[in-house]
Amino acid sequence: MSTAPLLLTPGPLTTSARTRQALLLDWGSWDERFNRLTASVCERLLAIVNAADSHHCVPLQGSGTFAVEAAIGTLVPRDGKVLVLVNGAYGKRLASICSVLGRAFCTLESAEDQPSDAAEVEQRLLADPAITHVALIHCETGTGILNPLEPIAEVVARHAKRLIIDAMSSFGALPIDARLVPFDALIAASGKCLEGVPGMGFVLAHKASLAEAGGNSHSLALDLHDQQTYLARTGQWRFTPPTHVVAALHEALQQYAEQGGQPARLRRYADNCQVLLEELGKLGLRSFLPEAIQAPIIVTVHAPQDPHYEFKALYERVKAKGFILYPGKLTEVDTFRVGCIGDITRHHLQAAVQAIGEALHEMGVATLRVPGVATPTLNSHFRA
Amino acid sequence: MSTAPLLLTPGPLTTSARTRQALLLDWGSWDERFNRLTASVCERLLAIVNAADSHHCVPLQGSGTFAVEAAIGTLVPRDGKVLVLVNGAYGKRLASICSVLGRAFCTLESAEDQPSDAAEVEQRLLADPAITHVALIHCETGTGILNPLEPIAEVVARHAKRLIIDAMSSFGALPIDARLVPFDALIAASGKCLEGVPGMGFVLAHKASLAEAGGNSHSLALDLHDQQTYLARTGQWRFTPPTHVVAALHEALQQYAEQGGQPARLRRYADNCQVLLEELGKLGLRSFLPEAIQAPIIVTVHAPQDPHYEFKALYERVKAKGFILYPGKLTEVDTFRVGCIGDITRHHLQAAVQAIGEALHEMGVATLRVPGVATPTLNSHFRA
Repeated sequence: MSTAPLLLTPGPLTTSARTRQALLLDWGSWDERFNRLTASVCERLLAIVNAADSHHCVPLQGSGTFAVEAAIGTLVPRDGKVLVLVNGAYGKRLASICSVLGRAFCTLESAEDQPSDAAEVEQRLLADPAITHVALIHCETGTGILNPLEPIAEVVARHAKRLIIDAMSSFGALPIDARLVPFDALIAASGKCLEGVPGMGFVLAHKASLAEAGGNSHSLALDLHDQQTYLARTGQWRFTPPTHVVAALHEALQQYAEQGGQPARLRRYADNCQVLLEELGKLGLRSFLPEAIQAPIIVTVHAPQDPHYEFKALYERVKAKGFILYPGKLTEVDTFRVGCIGDITRHHLQAAVQAIGEALHEMGVATLRVPGVATPTLNSHFRA
Repeated sequence: MSTAPLLLTPGPLTTSARTRQALLLDWGSWDERFNRLTASVCERLLAIVNAADSHHCVPLQGSGTFAVEAAIGTLVPRDGKVLVLVNGAYGKRLASICSVLGRAFCTLESAEDQPSDAAEVEQRLLADPAITHVALIHCETGTGILNPLEPIAEVVARHAKRLIIDAMSSFGALPIDARLVPFDALIAASGKCLEGVPGMGFVLAHKASLAEAGGNSHSLALDLHDQQTYLARTGQWRFTPPTHVVAALHEALQQYAEQGGQPARLRRYADNCQVLLEELGKLGLRSFLPEAIQAPIIVTVHAPQDPHYEFKALYERVKAKGFILYPGKLTEVDTFRVGCIGDITRHHLQAAVQAIGEALHEMGVATLRVPGVATPTLNSHFRA
């Protein structure tokens, strides 16, 4: 094909040409120039959440899940106990990680369209003093739901417990301030809202907690204490870094700063999301989440209730028109997802929804615009 | 700077422009086109060692060490015991992995200029029936030494034990035939002799052994049984793959085939190595290893015995002339290393050694050409 389709997925996502150009150089992983690249990336990542004084940035090879596992394995002592907040696929994955690692854990589950609740977290902490850590997903990419980070962090800190935040799909777009939200670990990856390419994650780890974490890890490769100790001593990654991916992230972070940082990124994504919801509404397609808890990252859309509808067919037709959609990840409701993130603007989302409409029409699918049902909108909190 | 220096390091290494061009496309990790890319990469990797019938290729995010840990964690049962053959830094790392994972292990150590010995392996297997697996480094990148894979594999198979081969810096260049060398796991990575960019490893895992390995792994992210099961069912990686890195490896494998596959790759590297040794010899610089055990991958060079010599200064001067050297990794002897691998030919190595000579001259270092000492050469086995 001549041009690559636009990725409307929650990562890998569409990157800028300038970011991809940064992939074209081979770097010596031992070289001072590459060390400076790593140091600059870490410095910029810490600055995004005002964590330079309180936290280390520990980069890690692999996907975001590798970094999440590394954070739990390194920062939760072997006799710790984790309360995992679950309202979607990625919350469940946190629980799986605790289970495989042999860390004691319990879960607080809510429905996939219900955010985790700080008051319920407090009840659980009061009821079970063995709990040492609380782990949650900031924006649950399974649905696109936003969990209330600040109130939960406040409860966790008040009870002198430690917080682990999987901010994979929110970091860089949604505001987080380490001076106001105390956390032991905040985890994200190169290929999400920072608009780098996939291949590395990172953990912003509380300095004091990380210093105490030697010997906790179940793994050599995923030991963040060792990774940080080596990095501090040598300026280098312990094991071969994905040099090209690091260089692309560096370039992506440069553009992030030039474009206005987190507020500008949020504005663009919120605009993308608002346009997406409006245009889908015009087609009669409904969002799974109510507006108050819809983060401007990814939208879960109810599949049309029509016998001619099939996701695979929609996917192929929309792809032929230049856009890659994402399948749903709910077990009980038939949905598909459309990402709002990446190097894209409202014009791309308008064109994408037009392609969805054309594809459904070609498939003979009626999308049943229900009279009287309001067009869904994004939480006014995120609106420009 | 205007042009990037050439990497004479054992990975990341210098890649071809065509391979780097393949980095310029964003891929949907859920898309059928990307699934075909993954399948094609795995098929080609298996074919290189004639393992398509007997083994699965399980790709894994992260550096090569991640894949080594994954292989040990997945394929050695929790009540297994590993005999680790050690004659350098990477053999020691195998032992560290067993230790961190809590797998019982013992080591058979030889000096850094002595290959592991099949007869000694046999003695150890006879003396300790608890041993279930033998793990070794094929080409120990710490020095560049070649360990005798075939005789060791024969002994291991004869005693009905399982073999784990870290072929990180040999795979694709040195011949290995799965029909003649039985192994449970052979591990390598994208950014070595296949001349891709770093960011993923892979394990060629024996089908029957992998099928029995469910539940062994200490890690969710590094569980090769789960990774393979998911890949077989969906065509996709379990967690976000480093899409650009996979695309570059695919392109690198295409060039590998066009250039004549493993025999051609070995010929070029052996020629590189021979020229490197000859030219270094003309400067009076001596190789650490005797020729019989020098693999054509990386050469460890004795540092000049001169008070004006300092590696850092040599490194910077040679880098300014366009070449990145690699530091030594021996504890008792002062050395540096020069890689023979990557998208480079004898002309690059001639120019590199000329740069080394000029740099030493500028530093006022005498390299003491000893009369009567023969110029070192590569094992005739590898010579054209």
